[in-house]
Amino acid sequence: MHTEAASRQAGLDSADTTKTSSGIVDAYAPVADQLLRVRARLLELADGQSPFLAELLVHVLDTTGKGIRPAITLLSSWFHPNDGTRAETMAVAVELLHLASLVHDDTVDNALIRRGKATVGSIWGRNAAVLVGDFIFATSAVFVCDTGNVRVIRRFSETIRELSSGELDEMAGAYNYRGTREDYFKRIYGKTASLFRTSSESGAVLSGVSDDQVSALNDYGYNLGMAFQIADDILDFQGSAEEAGKPVGNDLSQGVLTLPAIIAIERNPEDNPVIALCRRPGDPEVLAAAVELCQDSSVMDEASAVADRYTWLALESLAQLERNTARDSLEELVTVLVGRRS
Amino acid sequence: MHTEAASRQAGLDSADTTKTSSGIVDAYAPVADQLLRVRARLLELADGQSPFLAELLVHVLDTTGKGIRPAITLLSSWFHPNDGTRAETMAVAVELLHLASLVHDDTVDNALIRRGKATVGSIWGRNAAVLVGDFIFATSAVFVCDTGNVRVIRRFSETIRELSSGELDEMAGAYNYRGTREDYFKRIYGKTASLFRTSSESGAVLSGVSDDQVSALNDYGYNLGMAFQIADDILDFQGSAEEAGKPVGNDLSQGVLTLPAIIAIERNPEDNPVIALCRRPGDPEVLAAAVELCQDSSVMDEASAVADRYTWLALESLAQLERNTARDSLEELVTVLVGRRS
Repeated sequence: MHTEAASRQAGLDSADTTKTSSGIVDAYAPVADQLLRVRARLLELADGQSPFLAELLVHVLDTTGKGIRPAITLLSSWFHPNDGTRAETMAVAVELLHLASLVHDDTVDNALIRRGKATVGSIWGRNAAVLVGDFIFATSAVFVCDTGNVRVIRRFSETIRELSSGELDEMAGAYNYRGTREDYFKRIYGKTASLFRTSSESGAVLSGVSDDQVSALNDYGYNLGMAFQIADDILDFQGSAEEAGKPVGNDLSQGVLTLPAIIAIERNPEDNPVIALCRRPGDPEVLAAAVELCQDSSVMDEASAVADRYTWLALESLAQLERNTARDSLEELVTVLVGRRS
Repeated sequence: MHTEAASRQAGLDSADTTKTSSGIVDAYAPVADQLLRVRARLLELADGQSPFLAELLVHVLDTTGKGIRPAITLLSSWFHPNDGTRAETMAVAVELLHLASLVHDDTVDNALIRRGKATVGSIWGRNAAVLVGDFIFATSAVFVCDTGNVRVIRRFSETIRELSSGELDEMAGAYNYRGTREDYFKRIYGKTASLFRTSSESGAVLSGVSDDQVSALNDYGYNLGMAFQIADDILDFQGSAEEAGKPVGNDLSQGVLTLPAIIAIERNPEDNPVIALCRRPGDPEVLAAAVELCQDSSVMDEASAVADRYTWLALESLAQLERNTARDSLEELVTVLVGRRS
């Protein structure tokens, strides 16, 4: 489920390690003031609402993380002179969309904790969580309308559609050992890279840059999102349960076959504990053997090489843009979020 | 919960009585061909999707009712020469929005049956229902973007927001006997009248009529939606359980205080079985006494008078428009849906 990825993101977002956190803050430097305004506008959303809705909104908005997506939108608007107003409005929208999707993911997954706080569903019930998620999705769309740009508005709606279809594909593909890399890439595009792409593309479009530059920033967001999700899926097999704050191999234990599992199956499609797990979900010994196979250093290396390829493509996309502070920051963000530079 | 209203709507939509059904079909006559095209476009949505998502979509789209909202959009576009293309696209969007809200309502209410068919949640689980609801919401928004009209797009997003806040208000207001008529009107605006209003207003805007006429059609949709919901809430206290297909007083049994209950409380704020029910939810004897009080003919008459007032306002709004076939149909629709003409 998305929670695996999302809770890792949450970890990154909310400063679980000082190193990552300070790296992100450094990368945000050019847009630090703008991000503060975005944050203030998010917190204002509860004003004037009914007491119950206001309480739910304050709870959700207070879990806002480090704001990777709004930062990408703002930085992507720095390649053409503009007053930044529309990019700021868009940055509010992309963060709201991300928050709405987290609320619904937690509902789908029956998650109890998000970013160290009890989830809406665990406090007010899943019913309230479904509805407040809808409200935040709709509010994000209202913000996008304020940009007045139909191309951006349409792309935004498509992103919500891709997010939900990515999650549904993951649900449908659970324990399906016949799933290919292409199925996996399609899924992680929907659940993660689509919104990264929309974050960068919309900032670019709203700033008024040329189509070539929009395309470069679109590619940047797409490739960064793909690399980010693959790195996240690799991380799920690394470290100890204590370090990660959840069991190692959590994805696999829920039948979600990510890139390492798919590589492990590709290497031995006949006799394979990952396939055995798909046939006997829940067997702890089979799960342990499957996780161990995915942790094999050559499997991990191959998965990392795929992530590196996307990382490289993200950096290549940036190379097509004029060099400025924002480009340096977007480059820095790749390193901080994905952890390596090819 | 919305289900009470929605299942009544479903009843109306899906021909529970021959009289109502044929009345609706008659009222649709001018836009019958357009509605067929709208229906065909809805059914095409599953094409090209992943097998699981396609299966969910076919199930949901196959439950499409009589299409009150798309008919209103189409008829409202008949007051200015235009080729009807944008109104048809918008009609697809309003029906999708309605369907998405029903999917989430059923999820929130754990409903098993909708329009005589098992709900998505009862077949594939609530998790799939949340995500396919999101997908349909987003798809509806993509259709609205195809109209290219930012005013309409924005109003549409606001409607999704009002739908969810209306539902949340209803949830928060359960068993609250201090709720006023104004609270009630705000709630039913959000959960029902907002989309009726958007259905008529968007048809008008997209046809290119003058602001005065947009305003008249906006008022029409708003007032018809309010009258429709109040009539529905009155119906909940009428007839036998067999006729209604669910227990009489179903709203009240779930703590939802609709207009008849509010009127009953207004008349005797001291010693009142409705208030007693709010203090002791679930007591069957107290519930029976509360339902009986709401069924009192003078309470019912006062509630009907409120519905009549909205009905009258809806018809008054139409009187500001030139008389044509569409206006006759919109007038007929008021009679068919709300059942009386003041």
